[in-house]
Amino acid sequence: MGIGPGGPQDRTRRAERAIAESQVIVGYKRYLNLIQDLTSGKEIISSGMTMEVERCKAALEKASHGYIVALVSSGDPGIYGMAGLAVELSCQQKNSVPIEIIPGVTAASATAARIGAPLMLDFACISLSDLLVSWDVIRQRIEAVAAADMVVALYNPKSKKRIDQLVEAATIFRKYRNGTTPVAIGTSVGTQEENIVLSDLDHFLDSQINMRSIVIIGNSSSKVIDGWFITPRGYKTHSYE
Amino acid sequence: MGIGPGGPQDRTRRAERAIAESQVIVGYKRYLNLIQDLTSGKEIISSGMTMEVERCKAALEKASHGYIVALVSSGDPGIYGMAGLAVELSCQQKNSVPIEIIPGVTAASATAARIGAPLMLDFACISLSDLLVSWDVIRQRIEAVAAADMVVALYNPKSKKRIDQLVEAATIFRKYRNGTTPVAIGTSVGTQEENIVLSDLDHFLDSQINMRSIVIIGNSSSKVIDGWFITPRGYKTHSYE
Repeated sequence: MGIGPGGPQDRTRRAERAIAESQVIVGYKRYLNLIQDLTSGKEIISSGMTMEVERCKAALEKASHGYIVALVSSGDPGIYGMAGLAVELSCQQKNSVPIEIIPGVTAASATAARIGAPLMLDFACISLSDLLVSWDVIRQRIEAVAAADMVVALYNPKSKKRIDQLVEAATIFRKYRNGTTPVAIGTSVGTQEENIVLSDLDHFLDSQINMRSIVIIGNSSSKVIDGWFITPRGYKTHSYE
Repeated sequence: MGIGPGGPQDRTRRAERAIAESQVIVGYKRYLNLIQDLTSGKEIISSGMTMEVERCKAALEKASHGYIVALVSSGDPGIYGMAGLAVELSCQQKNSVPIEIIPGVTAASATAARIGAPLMLDFACISLSDLLVSWDVIRQRIEAVAAADMVVALYNPKSKKRIDQLVEAATIFRKYRNGTTPVAIGTSVGTQEENIVLSDLDHFLDSQINMRSIVIIGNSSSKVIDGWFITPRGYKTHSYE
């Protein structure tokens, strides 16, 4: 079972091969739309956004009957994607099926590349969704990362119903960092609706942010030069001139 | 200027297109060897491992003369790669050249995919190289991430001359986590010399680890099932059965 790709340009060879070799494609509707060019003639099983367990079980069920199945995540299936659940559910079955996990370009990398190089120094990926992890635990992680001057990429920063967490995260970072610290917001990166905003810690909450956004907050050495958001690694760039 | 790919199977379409469209390819010898199939007939500028500034300047120099240049990193150029330096140096030039940064599959994602799904919950990427960042700062980040129960991917964990940092990192994690916490070591992932080891916090230092390794240390919920290293996100996998 292959687990495949994100935006068309960021697809890997391995992901495209896996889709091509598969007989059944399983995934969230929005992601299946992104790979329509690869899936004609194949059996398609699509489902809604919060149906992760059902989607995985459908994929494993098909695989257990001998079909080659691709379970599709956007970005990297191993980072807030479907890889963990697929492995976990497969191990619970009597006859587990062979699984191949195909790594992809995660949304933090894709967003970073569009705006510069904010992730050049140590960074953390933190999801603000408290559906599966308690907000207390998430808040402690934000505090730890903010205090340790690490760059952060926030996944699932905000939904229609969940807006307080991002405000609280901003408040925590504001305790440790200047209001002028660069912040990038990438929404639907790699798709036709892609939108990239460069802002700062004092103002980024005014921007449009949703569940398809990634928010990257710089650290004390991050800066904006000529419209690029970079976190310099500290090479002596002038000493050779 | 495109910045391109890692192991052949993990190359993205965008990276392959950039190499194809480029007239000059600049990179560290080892990485250029990985893309030999794409570079015949092109001008090649290769250099040694610690020549990052020179390599970037050579690429920018060529680009300033109107050539289309690909500056090659392995993995994701935006994560401990060349993207930041290229942008920084370009902005210092009088006539900066147009730059396109092409995101890739970072080594943490590639290693995770080979061994399961250890990065399914919040995690940090930390480089143990103290060439450009002081060990005091790095140690504080390790302590913060360990205390906040985050999974960690350690980049540049160990070199021939630098072995103490990894031992100290292990000691810090051991303060907060059980000795049985799963640890994965991926070396030269995506290449023909790829080697993956699954170990635990008490024993992983006995394994072969070098500058081409990534070390992934699980958190309190990480576990090994049927040889897979996973960090469950907490879906109720049994409630639907």
